[in-house]
Amino acid sequence: MSRSVITFLTDFGLQDDFVGTCHGVIAGIAPDAHVIDLTHGIAPQAVLQGAVVLHNTIAYLPVGVHLAVVDPGVGGDRRAVAVVTRDGRVFVGPDNGLLMVAADALGVDRAHELVDPRYRLPVVSRTFHARDVFAPAAAHLAAGVAVEELGPAVPVDSLVRVDVPEPEVGRTQISTTVLVVDRFGNVATNARRSHVDALSAHEGRLEVRLALDRYYASLVETFAEAQVGELILYEDSYGLMTLAISSGDAAKLTGVGPGDEIRFAVT
Amino acid sequence: MSRSVITFLTDFGLQDDFVGTCHGVIAGIAPDAHVIDLTHGIAPQAVLQGAVVLHNTIAYLPVGVHLAVVDPGVGGDRRAVAVVTRDGRVFVGPDNGLLMVAADALGVDRAHELVDPRYRLPVVSRTFHARDVFAPAAAHLAAGVAVEELGPAVPVDSLVRVDVPEPEVGRTQISTTVLVVDRFGNVATNARRSHVDALSAHEGRLEVRLALDRYYASLVETFAEAQVGELILYEDSYGLMTLAISSGDAAKLTGVGPGDEIRFAVT
Amino acid sequence: MSRSVITFLTDFGLQDDFVGTCHGVIAGIAPDAHVIDLTHGIAPQAVLQGAVVLHNTIAYLPVGVHLAVVDPGVGGDRRAVAVVTRDGRVFVGPDNGLLMVAADALGVDRAHELVDPRYRLPVVSRTFHARDVFAPAAAHLAAGVAVEELGPAVPVDSLVRVDVPEPEVGRTQISTTVLVVDRFGNVATNARRSHVDALSAHEGRLEVRLALDRYYASLVETFAEAQVGELILYEDSYGLMTLAISSGDAAKLTGVGPGDEIRFAVT
Repeated sequence: MSRSVITFLTDFGLQDDFVGTCHGVIAGIAPDAHVIDLTHGIAPQAVLQGAVVLHNTIAYLPVGVHLAVVDPGVGGDRRAVAVVTRDGRVFVGPDNGLLMVAADALGVDRAHELVDPRYRLPVVSRTFHARDVFAPAAAHLAAGVAVEELGPAVPVDSLVRVDVPEPEVGRTQISTTVLVVDRFGNVATNARRSHVDALSAHEGRLEVRLALDRYYASLVETFAEAQVGELILYEDSYGLMTLAISSGDAAKLTGVGPGDEIRFAVT
Repeated sequence: MSRSVITFLTDFGLQDDFVGTCHGVIAGIAPDAHVIDLTHGIAPQAVLQGAVVLHNTIAYLPVGVHLAVVDPGVGGDRRAVAVVTRDGRVFVGPDNGLLMVAADALGVDRAHELVDPRYRLPVVSRTFHARDVFAPAAAHLAAGVAVEELGPAVPVDSLVRVDVPEPEVGRTQISTTVLVVDRFGNVATNARRSHVDALSAHEGRLEVRLALDRYYASLVETFAEAQVGELILYEDSYGLMTLAISSGDAAKLTGVGPGDEIRFAVT
Repeated sequence: MSRSVITFLTDFGLQDDFVGTCHGVIAGIAPDAHVIDLTHGIAPQAVLQGAVVLHNTIAYLPVGVHLAVVDPGVGGDRRAVAVVTRDGRVFVGPDNGLLMVAADALGVDRAHELVDPRYRLPVVSRTFHARDVFAPAAAHLAAGVAVEELGPAVPVDSLVRVDVPEPEVGRTQISTTVLVVDRFGNVATNARRSHVDALSAHEGRLEVRLALDRYYASLVETFAEAQVGELILYEDSYGLMTLAISSGDAAKLTGVGPGDEIRFAVT
């Protein structure tokens, strides 16, 4: 049989030992688990961004344990949970909405709170539950412990959700929210292609309205269609309408970041 | 039997191929070893920081081979060593103190110098001993070679140590040294809770004295106790008294970094 | 038998989910493959840098599948290829020269275009072929699919090559090009030791001529020979003549980056 897979997403970055220490804890409990670092580059405490990335990528990950920790409420009274989806995945992390965009899309079967001390480290710190609570739970699940063993059932309705903002679509204008900016400076919004298609007569070119600036962007299918240096709007590989510059950095040009508003208007 | 574990800590960063190339060398020698990247984010040539991180995290790592390379003296006459501790761990790296804070805490059993050419790469460069000397030694150890095979015994007393600075504790004031700043801007000092508890009548609030500035910090158990934007002092998950800002960046506010002095005083 | 090795080089960085998502895709197809992240720190779209790093490091990597993606032409008409070398390695990536500095040095046996839909993801996006085309091909190869299955043979002569610039060597001066700047600020040029040795009477000291500035550098074997803060020129561990500062950052001092010219002259 293949090794159990644990995917691992956090806002820890890779500068510190946080991620490596969690890998150590997992290896001590489930030496044969295959841990895949999905990303540790979520912006610090950006629960919504983490939830969107987990949702966007889940179809590309093997069925397994999906450990995710973006946890501004660590040490407070937010619950630690394991959420089982209908396709047999188990999401492990804080009950702050991080897991639920992906889990709800797949259909939640049941959830359990991570309270049984047998599946935590012997000493649980106040500030590093990834190491002391979440990684041990994920590792025990990968090693074959049933999710019911980890703690009592939690009503699925009681799990915290985050709102993923939806674009506002008018006849000649869409108001969108920036979800993710990647290392290439590509700016992914919450608009889908259908939102853009609903605009009247855009002729392949839209005005891009920011708080202070205006630009024009060409609608293209691929970077190869664009001139070098041209501002473009394309559907990214996760289906999000994304602003980019061919061989350039659209985030640097526009100065926008996650949460900012961008309006696309017929010119 | 489980795969042998090699943990790996350096100051190489992840921008270059240094870490990946060492992984390649290890995989060529010990294809079934399980390599865990503990961190590669130690500040360039910061031996003390590397030593502290290795010490802080070692209890969370499976018993195995612990490869660590922060090596400003590469190519000079510092020795390359493997240090065996009483619990059966083997630390591999330069003899510059990097390994010894952790190893001494566990109790050193014996040490050997890495000189046998059978366990180095055929050509040893002057500047990349992680690839040519240390990674091969770690891999051969993980593959079952006895530490005695790697080279002659080294007297344990002769191994280089670094001094971890201790705080100076007065009746109304502690003088501390910053050990680590993490990605969240949390500033870990060398003070422990007992040092703070020894201050007279601090009433849960301390003055924070830097070279030029003064702040006030609240003593808290968790981030959840703090107001957003409040400067706090808490015991971090490794037991270090740490300055932080709830939903903020204490390192940015204060401008301090590793090696800087911070004094905490009763107000 | 040992697990199949896939090495993985990109310009994706580690901030986003790109690398982790590709790991997920690979694990779904070839659960027992051992994926080694060679580096994901190639500068965005820097095909030449990627080609040089792959060439420099290949001797340290086990024979396996070598997945490399630096792909400014994604979505255009550049081919996706697998290139088999005489020693049994298979390079997988875009046909833009990235693979060929390493592959030509090893000797190319044959190449195939990655077009068979059985070995791609069911939906292929316009902008993320690493996930949809290259990672699946690499994973299927690691899982035992023959390279001939992936698509039709491609004439080896038709594969795109990049020119690695060669230094211009005079009697008293070498004109070099910067290939790579690493995290320590070391500046690797395209000059080899033989180029420097061919200069007349340099007496261990060369003038370093940039567009606007001049410096002097000492020729040394190791960092340990240099004074702290001294500018030095040494042969790096890949055989490239490299400008560095002992305990300092030569890239910051000089302001040079990949592609810039540096002339070394007899003083």
